[in-house]
Amino acid sequence: MQRKLRMAMIGGGRGSFIGAVHRMAAALDGQIELVAGAFSADPECSRLTGQDLFLDADRVYPDYVTMLEKESLQPVDKKVDVISIVTPNHLHTAPALMALEKGFDVVLEKPMAFSLQEALLLDKKRKETGRELLLCHTYTGYPMVKEARARIANGELGIIRKIYGEYPQGWLHTFLENTQHKQADWRTDPARSGAAGAIGDIGTHIFNLIEYVSGLQVHQLCADVNTVVTGRKLDDDGAALLRFNNGASGVLMATQVAAGEENKICIRVYGDKGGLEWHQQDPNTLLLKWPDRPAEIVRTGASYVSEAARHNTRVPAGHPEGYLEAFGNLYRNFALFLRAKASGQTPSVVVADYPGTTEGVRGMAFIECMINSSRSSKKWTDLTV
Amino acid sequence: MQRKLRMAMIGGGRGSFIGAVHRMAAALDGQIELVAGAFSADPECSRLTGQDLFLDADRVYPDYVTMLEKESLQPVDKKVDVISIVTPNHLHTAPALMALEKGFDVVLEKPMAFSLQEALLLDKKRKETGRELLLCHTYTGYPMVKEARARIANGELGIIRKIYGEYPQGWLHTFLENTQHKQADWRTDPARSGAAGAIGDIGTHIFNLIEYVSGLQVHQLCADVNTVVTGRKLDDDGAALLRFNNGASGVLMATQVAAGEENKICIRVYGDKGGLEWHQQDPNTLLLKWPDRPAEIVRTGASYVSEAARHNTRVPAGHPEGYLEAFGNLYRNFALFLRAKASGQTPSVVVADYPGTTEGVRGMAFIECMINSSRSSKKWTDLTV
Amino acid sequence: MQRKLRMAMIGGGRGSFIGAVHRMAAALDGQIELVAGAFSADPECSRLTGQDLFLDADRVYPDYVTMLEKESLQPVDKKVDVISIVTPNHLHTAPALMALEKGFDVVLEKPMAFSLQEALLLDKKRKETGRELLLCHTYTGYPMVKEARARIANGELGIIRKIYGEYPQGWLHTFLENTQHKQADWRTDPARSGAAGAIGDIGTHIFNLIEYVSGLQVHQLCADVNTVVTGRKLDDDGAALLRFNNGASGVLMATQVAAGEENKICIRVYGDKGGLEWHQQDPNTLLLKWPDRPAEIVRTGASYVSEAARHNTRVPAGHPEGYLEAFGNLYRNFALFLRAKASGQTPSVVVADYPGTTEGVRGMAFIECMINSSRSSKKWTDLTV
Amino acid sequence: MQRKLRMAMIGGGRGSFIGAVHRMAAALDGQIELVAGAFSADPECSRLTGQDLFLDADRVYPDYVTMLEKESLQPVDKKVDVISIVTPNHLHTAPALMALEKGFDVVLEKPMAFSLQEALLLDKKRKETGRELLLCHTYTGYPMVKEARARIANGELGIIRKIYGEYPQGWLHTFLENTQHKQADWRTDPARSGAAGAIGDIGTHIFNLIEYVSGLQVHQLCADVNTVVTGRKLDDDGAALLRFNNGASGVLMATQVAAGEENKICIRVYGDKGGLEWHQQDPNTLLLKWPDRPAEIVRTGASYVSEAARHNTRVPAGHPEGYLEAFGNLYRNFALFLRAKASGQTPSVVVADYPGTTEGVRGMAFIECMINSSRSSKKWTDLTV
Repeated sequence: MQRKLRMAMIGGGRGSFIGAVHRMAAALDGQIELVAGAFSADPECSRLTGQDLFLDADRVYPDYVTMLEKESLQPVDKKVDVISIVTPNHLHTAPALMALEKGFDVVLEKPMAFSLQEALLLDKKRKETGRELLLCHTYTGYPMVKEARARIANGELGIIRKIYGEYPQGWLHTFLENTQHKQADWRTDPARSGAAGAIGDIGTHIFNLIEYVSGLQVHQLCADVNTVVTGRKLDDDGAALLRFNNGASGVLMATQVAAGEENKICIRVYGDKGGLEWHQQDPNTLLLKWPDRPAEIVRTGASYVSEAARHNTRVPAGHPEGYLEAFGNLYRNFALFLRAKASGQTPSVVVADYPGTTEGVRGMAFIECMINSSRSSKKWTDLTV
Repeated sequence: MQRKLRMAMIGGGRGSFIGAVHRMAAALDGQIELVAGAFSADPECSRLTGQDLFLDADRVYPDYVTMLEKESLQPVDKKVDVISIVTPNHLHTAPALMALEKGFDVVLEKPMAFSLQEALLLDKKRKETGRELLLCHTYTGYPMVKEARARIANGELGIIRKIYGEYPQGWLHTFLENTQHKQADWRTDPARSGAAGAIGDIGTHIFNLIEYVSGLQVHQLCADVNTVVTGRKLDDDGAALLRFNNGASGVLMATQVAAGEENKICIRVYGDKGGLEWHQQDPNTLLLKWPDRPAEIVRTGASYVSEAARHNTRVPAGHPEGYLEAFGNLYRNFALFLRAKASGQTPSVVVADYPGTTEGVRGMAFIECMINSSRSSKKWTDLTV
Repeated sequence: MQRKLRMAMIGGGRGSFIGAVHRMAAALDGQIELVAGAFSADPECSRLTGQDLFLDADRVYPDYVTMLEKESLQPVDKKVDVISIVTPNHLHTAPALMALEKGFDVVLEKPMAFSLQEALLLDKKRKETGRELLLCHTYTGYPMVKEARARIANGELGIIRKIYGEYPQGWLHTFLENTQHKQADWRTDPARSGAAGAIGDIGTHIFNLIEYVSGLQVHQLCADVNTVVTGRKLDDDGAALLRFNNGASGVLMATQVAAGEENKICIRVYGDKGGLEWHQQDPNTLLLKWPDRPAEIVRTGASYVSEAARHNTRVPAGHPEGYLEAFGNLYRNFALFLRAKASGQTPSVVVADYPGTTEGVRGMAFIECMINSSRSSKKWTDLTV
Repeated sequence: MQRKLRMAMIGGGRGSFIGAVHRMAAALDGQIELVAGAFSADPECSRLTGQDLFLDADRVYPDYVTMLEKESLQPVDKKVDVISIVTPNHLHTAPALMALEKGFDVVLEKPMAFSLQEALLLDKKRKETGRELLLCHTYTGYPMVKEARARIANGELGIIRKIYGEYPQGWLHTFLENTQHKQADWRTDPARSGAAGAIGDIGTHIFNLIEYVSGLQVHQLCADVNTVVTGRKLDDDGAALLRFNNGASGVLMATQVAAGEENKICIRVYGDKGGLEWHQQDPNTLLLKWPDRPAEIVRTGASYVSEAARHNTRVPAGHPEGYLEAFGNLYRNFALFLRAKASGQTPSVVVADYPGTTEGVRGMAFIECMINSSRSSKKWTDLTV
């Protein structure tokens, strides 16, 4: 495929946070070009957004149904390959199903759907249609997260025994949804966000990071999920004791009321031979800890890192890569995967390493398990899917 | 009292870790002199230890009973004021009770006793005898821990909502008790350590730190306590979801199997106005975090700190103070307290700020609650005492 | 101008480091599209690079002269706006002069030229032609560098007294130029790099950062420039005592033989009211230090930062931005500047804030001054231009 | 010698900073007891200080001459072994000479003397009398500084090529000597401090640290020494380019006007195989940096450290040791050295590793060289002694 992949976007109109992020991430590597969009439920906003982005006016649509129908009829030299869906949670499943049915591959914001049921439906549809789906668990795109996974996978830490995962934020420490704050508004609204607030928004991220890095699965948990800010309709805080399928235990913490915190997602994993620690606020560093020799500072871009880390790095060591690069890694791997598939090649392991519907279904099951456990007087609740 | 306080020690013979720490902490400020000791159950070890410490041979005893009896008969210009007890947990209560009965004030290692029942007995005896007891929860002696407590007490963080307390260590990640390791040996032995291993040894420290800094009390918890290393007789790992008496929630983590960790005790507290964070591995820094202005790096010895922090600091900012200084603060405050009491003066608030039997009883109740909760299939267990 | 800016590139063929960086930086914000290139002195390499980038084959050229001639004849709806020159130092001036003469705006890698004389020529030509030139001193593109400059400019630190600037790298600690290493090869070759090695390559960066952040000018310096690795033809290490035009003093350090260092550029500035510190390896943090209150951790994306920092930030606080984003800020501001100019508008102050020929001339004067000073037995050498 | 060493102090009266530090450092390990003192030129202050310290009134003296005379006549079971001199610089030499002549060993604050000439005299006298002298360059007492020296000495970094040493403080950023500030008062007074201010007070520390850690000697330097604060009589800032006896180069920075800094002494050393970095503000960490493998975090108390580091450590890893412990290491080693000497034994290498008159003479030569170089228009000035 000797051309850029063509992409259309659903959502991400003026004022959107994550839509702009997706566009930058997709643009970064010159693999994808945005050519169409239905950017907002408000047609005028969609039109203006298209204009901001220098798109052809006739490929900017007032709604996603129109777009998917019209774009599916484009000639082969104009037709989009990928639909990127960056709407709130309640508007994930319908456009994604339609896109898959129309034969497009899909990029989807997390959490995958409004409910576990929807997620299972989407997973089924994807398999039926044979299309691909990228679910944007960004944090797994960081090179040092890849490195952490690689180190554990190759046994350097030994048998994993203990995992601490946390994601403290502070931005919802006040009743922000009362202030016309677009991001707070939908995220705290059960009709648009789903059964969970913080647990869905950021709990799923740290849950995904824990399972991705450790290679383990949570099979039981005991949760305490809270709504701290008065008047809020969904949870804004939670924690859980975890039990893993290999017998390890762990703790998961996610909160949006940690006043003064930014986005301090962090994971620590300990095996019988050593431990590791990664913080998103210092993303190019992975600490390896050993009982009987000095801790090591593993760095993005260094000569000694794994193939997985190297593949997801763009610049030499000492040139900090950040959130957009991690996000870009998801898009780049997805593009390279589709490109290989289109050419009849088998994508390499490092290219095929992006989150999809399997991770999405696990995430939705996690949300439901957390909510159920928190409401239960029983200690342990099974997480099965 | 125009002289140094005189102290005798029970335990702390050659090869002891904590006995040496107590002696350095007590010596640091020139307020206390060690004049007698029953350093070991082995009379020869006791004798040699006394010799190492340049003590008069006739004040080095083969056992604590002999010492307490003989020392209680010393003339007033030689008589010791304070008995410092640094033995394993099962040997706390008997010597402490006897010392109190003989009219001595007491310094005691934590956890306070072998069981909650013993702790309550000791608390009762202390009150009956009118003597004083210092319980060595060292971490509350750090200036920046005092500062954290002061900031919360004066309302700077607003209403406290969330607390994360953790104490990861790695030294017991192998079956060390099988290798003639003195510290590991008794700490993993139910007959000497009590009902808990890690939870008693370090869980009580982080529990105490949480209650001390926040000024709150845990009133319910849900625990998962584990024995990770095969063959071990007591727990070496645990975590708990916490509920506080003001409605706040929290998480407590304590483990001795985090391979590669040293002694990484850390506390984070969030209120509705801001948050704070303190790490023992960078003890002279207290981070204050604010939603709408830069986080602040509060430092030991700075001009702007609280009276509590200032009182517990010896050198100007930029001259790192550490563990022995924090430990020394306990001893110094205890000595100043006793000195004030002896002079009929009311000790100042900052001098009276040392842990005692109240904290000790809470700690023992915490241990029992953790063990009970972990064995229970019920989610929440009350922590009452 | 309701379209993306069109860009052509000179240099940056397969295997190039900085060419790929320029392309990612230019693509990130959807303001610029790469449409043409003469990527290598080797026509086949140029062709293959164009193919990698999905360019039209007829706009990929075997050499820059051909490209500039042909592209200057394109119709207005295809014609490129900007020529980006990413060749080694000895190939900066000729293509830049020709591009300016042909009516293109220019993006140019640093240091600006092969010699101060060339730089002055280029500056003159730019003024004569009325075109614009962006010189890629990337580090000034970081939001927290902008913040540092803003804080000093508004007097928060008071009168500046002391500046420490350093740029330690380790990659040239061995005789790497002997190993077919493309980057090392030309950078250590006087015929391609110019009068200086490390001083030109990274010394100019830290020099530029010092003058940019402080708003001051170095007017005298005393340098010790060394060639540490045996066999090397140019310097790989240097340091200088600095005197500024306001009476402040400082120290500049730049080395490429600090084995084990990545790219640890850092600046510290002290005034009579406070100090600041910025490290590229933690780029989203700016430390402000005060004599009588806690140091402050100023963060990219925070609510309280300057307009200059905010303008150069893409994502909310806690989503790390890095080197490519800083580089992207240079391109974005340059694009917005050209866009405003094309529309007859006055670019805002924050948009006009990108390095150009003035900074380039200062940089070349710095190089010559360092080399001259180092060879002199006189203590101070004037830096005038 | 089956008893504590007996010590008398000259200087260190109420309100003194360093006197109290010496007393805590000497007391920490139970090797030394303070039994006498002439604490102030003001006899009443001396008396009250003695009382604060619970000394016998008849061993507290109104002046040092009286003390040295009377104490030299004490019977052997009371006679002091060591005189600790903690007065301002102009009062180092006379009491030290007299103490040596009277047969005492001496502890002396740095810089060793008022001038190089005095230092040479003191060195000569020490050798003539056969007594020992400890010069308190505290920073060399840190375990991780010992480790740094050991790593370089055993060749782990290869041939040393570059050294950066710095000591920024901020406490003199205003005209503090005008505010009755005791510490500022004498340190900025040429009659009491000597030829230099900051260079003598802290420049000598970083100079000593550089030579101690590297095992090299500075043989030439080029200095810029400044008086930044208006009205000040001595320098408060300086920097120098360094050349070492093995051909390495370096930079030394010392300032007391870096507003907002505490005591940020730091050293970085690079050899042809790797580098190291140590910061006093994180004193229990030594960073080792390698070109081709992860940087290592070497920690006080770890199992793998050198004998030199281990010997100078009191508590297990993870229990932070600080400034007083480092200072205590000087006293402890000196005490163990004297004890060995008294017993006719050869002190071990790690015990004999404390700074003395050789280091003191180098320090005074450094001061003179810095001042001379700064006044010279010649680039390089030899540092010979």
